[in-house]
Amino acid sequence: MMTSTYCVTLKDVQEAHKRIHNLVHVTPALTCSSLDALAERKLFFKCELLQKTGSFKIRGALNAVQSLPTDTRKAVVTHSSGNHGQALALAAKMMGIPAHVVVPRTAASCKKAAISGYGAVIVECDPTDESRTAVAAKTVETTGGILVHPNQDPAVIAGQGTIGLEVLKQVPAVEALVIPVGGGGMLSGIAVAVKTIKPDVRIYAAEPLNADDCYRSKVNGVLTPNPQPPTTIADAVKTSIGPNTWPIIRDLVDDVFVVTEEEIKQATQLVWERMKLLIEPTAGLGLAAVLSRRFQETAQDIQNICIILCGGNLDMSSLDWV
Amino acid sequence: MMTSTYCVTLKDVQEAHKRIHNLVHVTPALTCSSLDALAERKLFFKCELLQKTGSFKIRGALNAVQSLPTDTRKAVVTHSSGNHGQALALAAKMMGIPAHVVVPRTAASCKKAAISGYGAVIVECDPTDESRTAVAAKTVETTGGILVHPNQDPAVIAGQGTIGLEVLKQVPAVEALVIPVGGGGMLSGIAVAVKTIKPDVRIYAAEPLNADDCYRSKVNGVLTPNPQPPTTIADAVKTSIGPNTWPIIRDLVDDVFVVTEEEIKQATQLVWERMKLLIEPTAGLGLAAVLSRRFQETAQDIQNICIILCGGNLDMSSLDWV
Repeated sequence: MMTSTYCVTLKDVQEAHKRIHNLVHVTPALTCSSLDALAERKLFFKCELLQKTGSFKIRGALNAVQSLPTDTRKAVVTHSSGNHGQALALAAKMMGIPAHVVVPRTAASCKKAAISGYGAVIVECDPTDESRTAVAAKTVETTGGILVHPNQDPAVIAGQGTIGLEVLKQVPAVEALVIPVGGGGMLSGIAVAVKTIKPDVRIYAAEPLNADDCYRSKVNGVLTPNPQPPTTIADAVKTSIGPNTWPIIRDLVDDVFVVTEEEIKQATQLVWERMKLLIEPTAGLGLAAVLSRRFQETAQDIQNICIILCGGNLDMSSLDWV
Repeated sequence: MMTSTYCVTLKDVQEAHKRIHNLVHVTPALTCSSLDALAERKLFFKCELLQKTGSFKIRGALNAVQSLPTDTRKAVVTHSSGNHGQALALAAKMMGIPAHVVVPRTAASCKKAAISGYGAVIVECDPTDESRTAVAAKTVETTGGILVHPNQDPAVIAGQGTIGLEVLKQVPAVEALVIPVGGGGMLSGIAVAVKTIKPDVRIYAAEPLNADDCYRSKVNGVLTPNPQPPTTIADAVKTSIGPNTWPIIRDLVDDVFVVTEEEIKQATQLVWERMKLLIEPTAGLGLAAVLSRRFQETAQDIQNICIILCGGNLDMSSLDWV
């Protein structure tokens, strides 16, 4: 294994851990006997929905902000109105620098409220990719700030990887981790950490069938982004994996399990009802994957599985599918 | 203080702890900085919604079943179709004896499914108090079983008190606990444990204004049950306190805070949105009490508060008020 050829190494993840561990929660790894019975395995749920800002994204954001050279820490900029936007806003606030978050003027007002609630400046753009990129670039210029990419920034990837260090400590018997994949920051960060420390632990990705760029990239052996913006209830993983996360995923991820919208909804509701954890549908991906027929057929020898419940930032008013 | 005059003592709670601690979860005591800011205090949330069966009731049920003399452990009977019914069903299953749960034939099918899912026999009755009592008595007779009262049975009270032992350990700085009250089993069990070990820690009850028998009993100085079945969204605390819990509540509970239906709904939604914990509305009582104006005026000196999130058994189809 040649982890030295990737954009992050175990050492980067360990340094990220040192930087952020006093600033984030060590989220619990909870169990649920009725879901164990359903899956016919022992499941451990790493509760990143209970993390600060309601998702794991604060880990990468904090590591990125802290990794900036002190003299360039003027401001940070991003164009994510989702979990990364909130996380970067809080990370910047904790480190005492301004954050500017570019948000389409059509974005849900609850998202804008969350971002400004963490003290960030909202910069509105038109709801197109072109406008978003242009406004972000202009904001970087006018503020002297630095753009922190939500999933391709190496410091972000290293920060998300700290989840892997915690899981190895909290669940010593773990044989596999099942991790949702969008841009692949969390997946690749955890993969580098876990595979370097314990190469026998399997790293499985869970992905919506409707946004299966990671699955197709692995099948094709070449980075294959989603051809157009996908439609899925798992709205935090609509992004495709990218140039920095792909080599790690290509080499270190053992398998990718794709699941249908119906499977995601069922798994999400199972976690709500059986575990009382208000996950967002994206966080239902892992359980959906484990309960899928292909997983049952493929990973029969694996008994102790850790599922990452990545977030809980649910728009309660969008629950008409329940 | 004369705890020896009550139906349970600290020793009973400590023995309950020995009996059940390997069978239940040590639920986490989570924090949330945005709710701290709202309350202008440091809040710790004891997550009994993450307990087995989705509520603290398994503690008392397990202690009650294990306290039965071995030769009388033929069966247990109850007429609660709520959290206690589910808890007693699982406790009996874990101890290898049958449970019979008397349920009105009109009860929601999800409740019946949960109870039979834990392996209990469902005995249907008419939806009246008379029928319920008669059918329960008859079931005791025919099965040779023992009726376990959901909140007046001393072994149940001692079992619920184990929450207090855990809180003192998990939150050493705690100055007050805020506890929902229905029949008062949890409130009085925790009060006995905490007040005996640390008499300076305040014990506050949280109660719906629409079911304020505990508040009125304290004001009147005499047990004053609700005159008629109350209507409240906090459906797990419609019961009145009773003869075994009242003396403890009278002497050891420092204050009772009543809250409106609107306050309960707001607090419940705050916990969902800010903490991602799917509590049932009854578990919103504690935060509602802490955020109420009277609490802010009364308990100004208290900085570290532990709120008991008692359960998460929510009927998702009844959320039309959100």
